[in-house]
Amino acid sequence: MTSMTDVHPVPASSISGWDHEADVVIAGYGVAGAAAAVEAARAGADVLVAERTGSWGGAAAMAGGFIYLGGGTPLQKACGFEDSVDNMAAFLNVAMGPGADENRIADYCAGSVDHFDWLVDCGVPFKAEFWGEPGWEPPGDQGLMFTGGENAFPFNTIAKPAPRGHVPQMTDKRAGEASAGYMLMKPLVDTATSLGVRSVYDVRAVSLVVQSDGRVAGIIARQYGKRLAVRAHRGVVLACGSFAYNDAMVAQYAPRIAGRPAASIEQHDGQAIRMAQALGADLAHMDATEVAFLVDPQQTVRGILVNGRGQRYVPEDTYSGRIGQLTLYQQDDTAFLILDGDAQDEAMAATSATPLLKRQATWVCETVAELEREIGLPAGSLQATVNAYNDAAARGEDPLLHKKPEWVRPIGTPVGAIDLRGSTAGFTLGGLMTTLDSEVLHVGGEPIPGLYAAGRCTAGLAAWGYASGISLGDGSFYGRRAGRAAAKG
Amino acid sequence: MTSMTDVHPVPASSISGWDHEADVVIAGYGVAGAAAAVEAARAGADVLVAERTGSWGGAAAMAGGFIYLGGGTPLQKACGFEDSVDNMAAFLNVAMGPGADENRIADYCAGSVDHFDWLVDCGVPFKAEFWGEPGWEPPGDQGLMFTGGENAFPFNTIAKPAPRGHVPQMTDKRAGEASAGYMLMKPLVDTATSLGVRSVYDVRAVSLVVQSDGRVAGIIARQYGKRLAVRAHRGVVLACGSFAYNDAMVAQYAPRIAGRPAASIEQHDGQAIRMAQALGADLAHMDATEVAFLVDPQQTVRGILVNGRGQRYVPEDTYSGRIGQLTLYQQDDTAFLILDGDAQDEAMAATSATPLLKRQATWVCETVAELEREIGLPAGSLQATVNAYNDAAARGEDPLLHKKPEWVRPIGTPVGAIDLRGSTAGFTLGGLMTTLDSEVLHVGGEPIPGLYAAGRCTAGLAAWGYASGISLGDGSFYGRRAGRAAAKG
Repeated sequence: MTSMTDVHPVPASSISGWDHEADVVIAGYGVAGAAAAVEAARAGADVLVAERTGSWGGAAAMAGGFIYLGGGTPLQKACGFEDSVDNMAAFLNVAMGPGADENRIADYCAGSVDHFDWLVDCGVPFKAEFWGEPGWEPPGDQGLMFTGGENAFPFNTIAKPAPRGHVPQMTDKRAGEASAGYMLMKPLVDTATSLGVRSVYDVRAVSLVVQSDGRVAGIIARQYGKRLAVRAHRGVVLACGSFAYNDAMVAQYAPRIAGRPAASIEQHDGQAIRMAQALGADLAHMDATEVAFLVDPQQTVRGILVNGRGQRYVPEDTYSGRIGQLTLYQQDDTAFLILDGDAQDEAMAATSATPLLKRQATWVCETVAELEREIGLPAGSLQATVNAYNDAAARGEDPLLHKKPEWVRPIGTPVGAIDLRGSTAGFTLGGLMTTLDSEVLHVGGEPIPGLYAAGRCTAGLAAWGYASGISLGDGSFYGRRAGRAAAKG
Repeated sequence: MTSMTDVHPVPASSISGWDHEADVVIAGYGVAGAAAAVEAARAGADVLVAERTGSWGGAAAMAGGFIYLGGGTPLQKACGFEDSVDNMAAFLNVAMGPGADENRIADYCAGSVDHFDWLVDCGVPFKAEFWGEPGWEPPGDQGLMFTGGENAFPFNTIAKPAPRGHVPQMTDKRAGEASAGYMLMKPLVDTATSLGVRSVYDVRAVSLVVQSDGRVAGIIARQYGKRLAVRAHRGVVLACGSFAYNDAMVAQYAPRIAGRPAASIEQHDGQAIRMAQALGADLAHMDATEVAFLVDPQQTVRGILVNGRGQRYVPEDTYSGRIGQLTLYQQDDTAFLILDGDAQDEAMAATSATPLLKRQATWVCETVAELEREIGLPAGSLQATVNAYNDAAARGEDPLLHKKPEWVRPIGTPVGAIDLRGSTAGFTLGGLMTTLDSEVLHVGGEPIPGLYAAGRCTAGLAAWGYASGISLGDGSFYGRRAGRAAAKG
């Protein structure tokens, strides 16, 4: 019980003195922690945020900054898109599954417009401009994008397509200089600070302090090798991020993504999940992951993707994260992007926020038969696929996968292929089970008194599907709930 | 804390009197519990088994009875097959993954011949006869079969194919009358009884009793609505099976198999997992499942399986459980088996242990084009697949998936299809993390003192792959370890 990383709960009776005290103690100053801090302070609580790194921000500040919102936000309306709560829920119920929690999705969609207004009220800026090109992010300061394949098959047959990726505006975006995530975090932290929220840095939450009646009373933390006891008079909020950088947990729960964490930070070591597990907290969706597909969408959309059997398996104009998930989980992380010379030229010239993901062809050949041999695909497999694609493409159709006609064009020669085997990476989506008020659930089914959680240490909106903006979305949304609930105590 | 199903740990200090006492208390009298009982008793412990139903047996007694063993067992040798520890491990490391635990596999393979001898010594009978036809089980009392696709692609290129499904012999097997699983369980229970093992029935483990120093000291159980306290002087062994029948847990962890439990029993409600989680026990592989594919393998092998895009995806002569997994996880549970009239006639006449799984064609047509339309597959998709298959089959080859030449034959007319959408079912493979001595691990990384587990409430040999016989195999193997370790205390 004396190790500096020991996750075992510590009895409150064993604490001889508290190093810090507050009504609400929040572990982690990323988006979930910041949202919790604002709302707990507004509810009248004295709030202390303990952040492990030297500054606020977390993974959020480094992220593209998408917040998944809809149901008719002012930004959607200003850009000319119609949406409704039901339409948004219809999409998410399919796109976030299998295993998506319909109650949570309904709750999130119902509160989505209000949440947008709350962000704006906190000072988060959004520019009313839509970016409609394929891409991971807008290339400039545009505020709205499709981020989950809403306008691609099959989702465009399930719900009316509406873009829901809301991006905070940067005044001077240049690649590598800043991120929209920073423009989300800065106003939230400024708001928290103006409300009197205190913060301590280089303080890492290690374990929970528990009263004899089972109520969480604080945390044990570590600061520069020193052990701190932090008293929470009303509640503790865990907001420490995913377990993407905990190799053991990834091996136990999500081995397909092992060794390839992305879009997260090294501090995402799962400690919050384990601290709560040590108290009997329940988990969900532990094998689910966001999956990045490391090629520029301007290329993907102009070619056809085939698996190790030379077969197409996904409409190439859908959300790249969906392509990543289907490639990793259903195609053994094996994909080849087939592009003819014209398509490659066009893709290289197209505007993109991720020019570094534009890739040269691994192989270029005069015929598909030759390319098939070069790649090492089964004899005849790629030829049959390209023949079938080209036959239908000549009529502007894609009966196999329903890529939208605007992107359907026969593949000519010379024809190349980009080797996309092992070109996925991602972060984990599973974590603590919580109520809609962000109370952490015990395996016995009831909330653990005094313990709240939000963000990627919890199982949120996404189960096995994903859309960019879901993590900053549910992190901030349920972070607010956690802050309010913890302030009530 | 007063509910009859409350999983919260109960302090030993709160127990006013014990209803039962023993050195080693085992919850569950299936294969893991029986193996633990035998070994604990042989190690000199006074053993009590608390079984929830009215009799010993568990899922094991209802099962096909396969025990996955190899490395050169006397039965393998008597049937003329060579195998080695390394060869067996090479197969399992690939077939049980991704995420398979190589240390556990090495340990299991190294002890496999000894484990076979131990079973024989306990009185489990095996007939030295090999059954080589496609099938879920041998049709008679044959003792040895391939049960994991060892002789199919790609495994036949990774390790030398050796059958490892060891089946206890029934003296008079008739469909529905008895099972090989019974012939495994009866001798084990008889052995335990002869060693003085005591058992109580209709006693359901509900929660763990814990000393103030954290050591597990017994269980709280329920018998006909009465709460019992059962003292374990040396250790508690959890051997209560999977969570396949716990709808909430399946939704949290393995939603793809939701609503379709199979090859398990209703008592598999995950209670043992939750009892241990409430103490901070760690988990692994919670989304992994065995997957049955509900069609007779004599049919599958004679046709081609296509997904919802009309594409082949698996060699049809591999283990049916592998076909089930690939169908459920990689093809959205959508498969159609394409068979011509001759193949269907041959399959219907072929010997099988599962005649009830022989299915009539859902559609029969004169041409593949017509069949494609009837099924509702994308235009041209099935025709291209059958053309490519037939072209290569005329040369006795299957370059796409490497079905063995003996099963490769062009598809003629009339041609039919069996609708196999949603034709999967299965049980969960995830559960408690344990050491190789079957100690239950805390999320902090160390064993929970006094707590052991084996069988399908633990994460065993299989991660995301499976072979028939793995569950009775690791259940009995690590059940023995649990019994020995618990007896030492």
